[in-house]
Amino acid sequence: MPGAVKKRSAKTGLPPGSLVHIGERRTDQAKITLCSYDETHFQESEVRTVEGILPTDGGAVTWIHMDGLHEIHLLEQMGVNFGLHPLILEDILNTEQRPKSEDHGDYLYIVLRLFHEDAGGVLVPEQVSIVFGQNWLISLQEKEGRLFDPIRERLRNEKGRLRKAATDYLAHALIDAMVDSYFAILDRLGEKIETLEDALIGRPSPQTLRAIQALKREVILLRKSVWPLREMIGGLGRSDSPLIREQSVIYFRDIYDHAVQVIDTIETYRDMLSGMLDIYLSSISNRMNEIMKVLTIIATVFMPLTFLAGIYGMNFKYMPELEWRWGYVALWGVMVVIALIMLIAFRRKKWL
Amino acid sequence: MPGAVKKRSAKTGLPPGSLVHIGERRTDQAKITLCSYDETHFQESEVRTVEGILPTDGGAVTWIHMDGLHEIHLLEQMGVNFGLHPLILEDILNTEQRPKSEDHGDYLYIVLRLFHEDAGGVLVPEQVSIVFGQNWLISLQEKEGRLFDPIRERLRNEKGRLRKAATDYLAHALIDAMVDSYFAILDRLGEKIETLEDALIGRPSPQTLRAIQALKREVILLRKSVWPLREMIGGLGRSDSPLIREQSVIYFRDIYDHAVQVIDTIETYRDMLSGMLDIYLSSISNRMNEIMKVLTIIATVFMPLTFLAGIYGMNFKYMPELEWRWGYVALWGVMVVIALIMLIAFRRKKWL
Amino acid sequence: MPGAVKKRSAKTGLPPGSLVHIGERRTDQAKITLCSYDETHFQESEVRTVEGILPTDGGAVTWIHMDGLHEIHLLEQMGVNFGLHPLILEDILNTEQRPKSEDHGDYLYIVLRLFHEDAGGVLVPEQVSIVFGQNWLISLQEKEGRLFDPIRERLRNEKGRLRKAATDYLAHALIDAMVDSYFAILDRLGEKIETLEDALIGRPSPQTLRAIQALKREVILLRKSVWPLREMIGGLGRSDSPLIREQSVIYFRDIYDHAVQVIDTIETYRDMLSGMLDIYLSSISNRMNEIMKVLTIIATVFMPLTFLAGIYGMNFKYMPELEWRWGYVALWGVMVVIALIMLIAFRRKKWL
Amino acid sequence: MPGAVKKRSAKTGLPPGSLVHIGERRTDQAKITLCSYDETHFQESEVRTVEGILPTDGGAVTWIHMDGLHEIHLLEQMGVNFGLHPLILEDILNTEQRPKSEDHGDYLYIVLRLFHEDAGGVLVPEQVSIVFGQNWLISLQEKEGRLFDPIRERLRNEKGRLRKAATDYLAHALIDAMVDSYFAILDRLGEKIETLEDALIGRPSPQTLRAIQALKREVILLRKSVWPLREMIGGLGRSDSPLIREQSVIYFRDIYDHAVQVIDTIETYRDMLSGMLDIYLSSISNRMNEIMKVLTIIATVFMPLTFLAGIYGMNFKYMPELEWRWGYVALWGVMVVIALIMLIAFRRKKWL
Amino acid sequence: MPGAVKKRSAKTGLPPGSLVHIGERRTDQAKITLCSYDETHFQESEVRTVEGILPTDGGAVTWIHMDGLHEIHLLEQMGVNFGLHPLILEDILNTEQRPKSEDHGDYLYIVLRLFHEDAGGVLVPEQVSIVFGQNWLISLQEKEGRLFDPIRERLRNEKGRLRKAATDYLAHALIDAMVDSYFAILDRLGEKIETLEDALIGRPSPQTLRAIQALKREVILLRKSVWPLREMIGGLGRSDSPLIREQSVIYFRDIYDHAVQVIDTIETYRDMLSGMLDIYLSSISNRMNEIMKVLTIIATVFMPLTFLAGIYGMNFKYMPELEWRWGYVALWGVMVVIALIMLIAFRRKKWL
Repeated sequence: MPGAVKKRSAKTGLPPGSLVHIGERRTDQAKITLCSYDETHFQESEVRTVEGILPTDGGAVTWIHMDGLHEIHLLEQMGVNFGLHPLILEDILNTEQRPKSEDHGDYLYIVLRLFHEDAGGVLVPEQVSIVFGQNWLISLQEKEGRLFDPIRERLRNEKGRLRKAATDYLAHALIDAMVDSYFAILDRLGEKIETLEDALIGRPSPQTLRAIQALKREVILLRKSVWPLREMIGGLGRSDSPLIREQSVIYFRDIYDHAVQVIDTIETYRDMLSGMLDIYLSSISNRMNEIMKVLTIIATVFMPLTFLAGIYGMNFKYMPELEWRWGYVALWGVMVVIALIMLIAFRRKKWL
Repeated sequence: MPGAVKKRSAKTGLPPGSLVHIGERRTDQAKITLCSYDETHFQESEVRTVEGILPTDGGAVTWIHMDGLHEIHLLEQMGVNFGLHPLILEDILNTEQRPKSEDHGDYLYIVLRLFHEDAGGVLVPEQVSIVFGQNWLISLQEKEGRLFDPIRERLRNEKGRLRKAATDYLAHALIDAMVDSYFAILDRLGEKIETLEDALIGRPSPQTLRAIQALKREVILLRKSVWPLREMIGGLGRSDSPLIREQSVIYFRDIYDHAVQVIDTIETYRDMLSGMLDIYLSSISNRMNEIMKVLTIIATVFMPLTFLAGIYGMNFKYMPELEWRWGYVALWGVMVVIALIMLIAFRRKKWL
Repeated sequence: MPGAVKKRSAKTGLPPGSLVHIGERRTDQAKITLCSYDETHFQESEVRTVEGILPTDGGAVTWIHMDGLHEIHLLEQMGVNFGLHPLILEDILNTEQRPKSEDHGDYLYIVLRLFHEDAGGVLVPEQVSIVFGQNWLISLQEKEGRLFDPIRERLRNEKGRLRKAATDYLAHALIDAMVDSYFAILDRLGEKIETLEDALIGRPSPQTLRAIQALKREVILLRKSVWPLREMIGGLGRSDSPLIREQSVIYFRDIYDHAVQVIDTIETYRDMLSGMLDIYLSSISNRMNEIMKVLTIIATVFMPLTFLAGIYGMNFKYMPELEWRWGYVALWGVMVVIALIMLIAFRRKKWL
Repeated sequence: MPGAVKKRSAKTGLPPGSLVHIGERRTDQAKITLCSYDETHFQESEVRTVEGILPTDGGAVTWIHMDGLHEIHLLEQMGVNFGLHPLILEDILNTEQRPKSEDHGDYLYIVLRLFHEDAGGVLVPEQVSIVFGQNWLISLQEKEGRLFDPIRERLRNEKGRLRKAATDYLAHALIDAMVDSYFAILDRLGEKIETLEDALIGRPSPQTLRAIQALKREVILLRKSVWPLREMIGGLGRSDSPLIREQSVIYFRDIYDHAVQVIDTIETYRDMLSGMLDIYLSSISNRMNEIMKVLTIIATVFMPLTFLAGIYGMNFKYMPELEWRWGYVALWGVMVVIALIMLIAFRRKKWL
Repeated sequence: MPGAVKKRSAKTGLPPGSLVHIGERRTDQAKITLCSYDETHFQESEVRTVEGILPTDGGAVTWIHMDGLHEIHLLEQMGVNFGLHPLILEDILNTEQRPKSEDHGDYLYIVLRLFHEDAGGVLVPEQVSIVFGQNWLISLQEKEGRLFDPIRERLRNEKGRLRKAATDYLAHALIDAMVDSYFAILDRLGEKIETLEDALIGRPSPQTLRAIQALKREVILLRKSVWPLREMIGGLGRSDSPLIREQSVIYFRDIYDHAVQVIDTIETYRDMLSGMLDIYLSSISNRMNEIMKVLTIIATVFMPLTFLAGIYGMNFKYMPELEWRWGYVALWGVMVVIALIMLIAFRRKKWL
């Protein structure tokens, strides 16, 4: 997480609008997928350049999706073609943006944050940008992913409202897919939490604590992305931009509800993890009590006995007990009685 | 609780409005109860299909109650008959909704969350949806329950305002019954908390801690449902929908007050449980102190004595004390004095 | 406190407006005191029925005070006479209300919460309801109390503004008396806190902790009543009801300031009690340190000495030291030196 | 602090506007200082009565300052002369007011809270009231103080804007002096905190904890006064009273900034004191670890050795080792080896 | 940090607008850099006096930058030349200002806080003030720094929008540079936090705790500056001052986003440091458990054995075992068995 910010300072001193890709290069070559559709037609192609891709007057919707952000010239070209503000291009490349939406009159700019689990199970954030105008939509992702495949499928199949609707509905579908991806993340988090709870009931170790803290940090990381996401979607639902049409508002309200569900679950997880920390800490104290009890019982039983043995190990000339015929046996008797009294006392105290 | 979310991710990738029942199948067959009443007539029947059940022009109120949500075709038919938006049908089936109300012009959609205690005393949430228009009301529940029986009884008996009033008053009665059901839950929670408090004053064990944490989690779970419930009821009271008539507002304000009482009690329980956690943790420390005192007293008394016994167990040629006639007895005297001094010192320190 | 809610669930399932007294019966027979006054006249009587007590046209103010709520028929009669909404009667009987005010056009309804200390010093809440219209005011209390006696005295004596002013000023006087009663409660709480602080500086025991927690709970209980009280009084001061006249607003603002002072004090007490909890917990740790120091000092001094004594108690054939003339005395010397070194080391560590 | 409230309950039951001085008598005789000035003239005198001191029509500003509040008749006379509302007089005497400002049309009423350190270094609050109209200003203080002397000096010297400006600027100057006095308090608090930090790095004792808690309480006490002070000054800056002229607003905004600086410092101190509590608590735990290490090292080294010595102190007939020529010396060797192994093990564990 | 406030009380009692430099003298001689530029010309010079530097009518922008604030006469001259309000000059010199912006009609006044790391790695705050009107901008810094060099470079090179734009864009560039400087600070903080995390996983010492607390304090210090910074920039973006032109708003929104990113990172660091404190505290408890286990194991194994050795060291006349041929060997056997049983029991308890 601290590393996520480090890269940012590399841009210090540059004028605003300077296009520098902040973030690691996630893919070798940018991949551009071009879809064009209206109610009756659907065309899909993969292109290597954005030359000649221009907003059209006609009703057909053009959806340009780009995986990989490091080929800056492509982005610059796109900016020229669609008349995007330089600061938007900068924000697309600066992959540390907070989820937000900006209304630029002719087009809306939306940034979101997606999470993948890497091989080690660590959450890796990825920034997705969406810019859409009257009949065009550009979506940009840091790394190639399969998240939007079902949407493309729905477009191909003439299924549902998607082919008939305008770009705001397409934008809604993309955001919806991303919000849904949070549920999968939360499922895996929930499983990890349940595993940890079992570990806590068993024998908690310092590793358990570290795992709780690591999960807590992931939950905080998610939380930091989802709160502004919720605000952003809520803002789109209340937006007075002509690009968000009346009949789409209810769909944005729907994903707003989903975002609120995500937040609710995250807050629940936070509470659960805090409770687990309390249980962990008190289980350490309990174990200390256990240890101390063992020590105290042993010491309390054997110290008096050893003292007695010491007494009759003394070399005084005149120690009448030593001469007694049954002295030794009697002492054993006394010792057993003392030990029994001690043990009964401990049983009374519920230490045994 | 984590499990409650898991199911949600099964819907990932589907277009909005896809009807998939999210939640476990709680009943074998959906049961539909149909009531139709006005000031003079009352009719009640159980039906197997919703074909032909349509909103009517006349003043009679139609109340359709459905237990069990898994027969999706029934719901779809109902959606067609009453002109419900697909997203509402989806929300009804997606049983992880937050309590909310939505104004769709011709009808209002309300979601609430109910709690049952299962056999093991664990709280199980259930979603109840209410949709009502001018003279019809549909209520849907995941599982068959007896919660609304008293309302049906009041309808049958021509008792009270219910028969004379419009659908908003019926909706109010249903919500009122659900809010009241929270009081019963809280009573049982309160009893559990009192039992735990007694356990704390007695001998707290790690099980006590686990019980405190479990109750805390239930309280948090309830809290999460009641806060949006309060907002929702408050919103209905302030609503400018023509479906909520002027004279009903005061009744919604009344259940709003009840919801606030529920929240107050929940917050009180939260504070009490936090206080109990503090008491638990400090009682562990206190017990540790007790254990250490026993150990220290025993060690402090017997170590010097054992040392003295060791001294006179030595085999030096010239140890004059050993030859003394009363040496042994004198040593016993010295030892008793030392032990007494130690015990008096501990009494002074209030350790005994 | 949990008990306070239990009673509530007894009403589950009844239609709104059902009059059931929720709360324990606090007095044997309801006592009704009737005052009627204007600038020149004053009349006071105790009555057994409310028949014939009706709002009048004339300027004289009628104040009906009722101690004890269990005679429901009296309340019903009063409701009919003064045209009160059934929900208000229900709220008066349901003694778990939150402090609030409701504007019903012709009259205002105000609920407050009063606290008494019972024999054991435990705070017992009591609900007081005030309903007032143009020239009548009804006040209802669960139990007979002397709180309003000074107001009646002021009325009798023609003293102050009270006789000249309208019902809003009488209402203000009643609320003022109740807010003032909180100061007495806070004084006693403050004294208890000071006693506890002394106990903390002395020798804190688990009882001290329980006392802290009990006080904390009382403070929370008070807090829960005073925050909505403040809101309510603030709301009256800003009210646009014609019943609250322009010149009375400043008096409501005055008791608003008092309520804020009460809240400030409560928050101070909360902070103090939290600080005391910290001190308590760390004093337990400190005492543990003390205990462990004693144990460690004793063990560290005597273990090496006992070891040495053990050495010379061995029965080896060839142990030259045993034969030495001054061996025994020399060993004592060595032992004293070892003990002194240990004690000096502890003094260095500031353990002694 | 609890005592601060106790006095308040003495007023319970009195009608509003009853003039009772709540607070201890801080000075023997009230001292009234009268200043009258305009751009060209300046007159200053000490008077014993307020008879004949009336608001004038002319432009000259009259500033009446009173030290000591217990001579109630003076205050009553002043109230009559300047037409003050009885509730204001009551608030002036009730020295537990929260900082606030009230706009009474013809005049503004302002209450502030000042702090002095008494001989023992404890913060003592004092209430200062300011009432000002078109060309008169009354300031009242519980105890004689030198805080306003520099302002009087500035008036005498025809220096600055003060002589030319109206009463709002004089009020500003007084409030400014009082806000500035907080900085001195904070300086001394800061020094105490630094001293405590040094004590923490050295050897923290239970006294350190008590000192931290005492400082925390002082910080909370200050905080409670400064937050409403900030609100109040901010309110004056935004006031639409004609008494606050356009050109003075910037000066009130200036002291508003100072109040915010005071709050920032207070919040910093709070955070620092919380951090110190954490350090204190963990230093206790650390010291416990130290103690336990000493005990464990001693016990672990000497227990096996004492056991061995015990073995060879046994009186079995056939113990071949006892007969060996070098048995005794060999045993010493074995013992030294065991002790060394133990010590090396502890060094490995970094306990030594 | 407390020291930062101390200096402030030196001004107590002075009238507002008194020019006293609050802060340490950071540079020997104030250095004034004068830039004058428009789209075609650029002039840069270092001057020793501000005489004759006046706002001009022409379109050329004059940028006066001053390093070092202690030469008050220069500031006074500047105030006269550009018609600045005395309170602004006072705020510039009082280097404890909170970040804020003030709209004075003809000009805007902006204060920010910059951080440097001193030789010891401690954050040192520095106040930067910016005042700008139609075609002039004055920036003032306590100490000479290189932060604005890239901006000057951009001006020189005719590069970017800077030469064509008005003073608001120059102000934006300066603020942008300062916000960017926070990222560098955060990077170094992040590195320190990572180092500390490694230390925590290794062997945490009281020094680790002190380092955590020191970092926490730095984070709080930063936080305190960045929150008002965010507000201030947000306010500039929403400002209705004619000095902030329509086309610049988007640039201010851009640095607003950066400020939000800074805050997000700071909050993340705070959470991380809190988690580290928990880990530290529980690692102390864990280590205590380790120590106690060692002690308990040693004591539990050797106490029974020593007791047995003591038994057979007794001098009773009749102790048959002592006479047995294999008594000694048998006892050794018994002792080994006891020790083994103990060790197996500990292994069972997972203590070994």
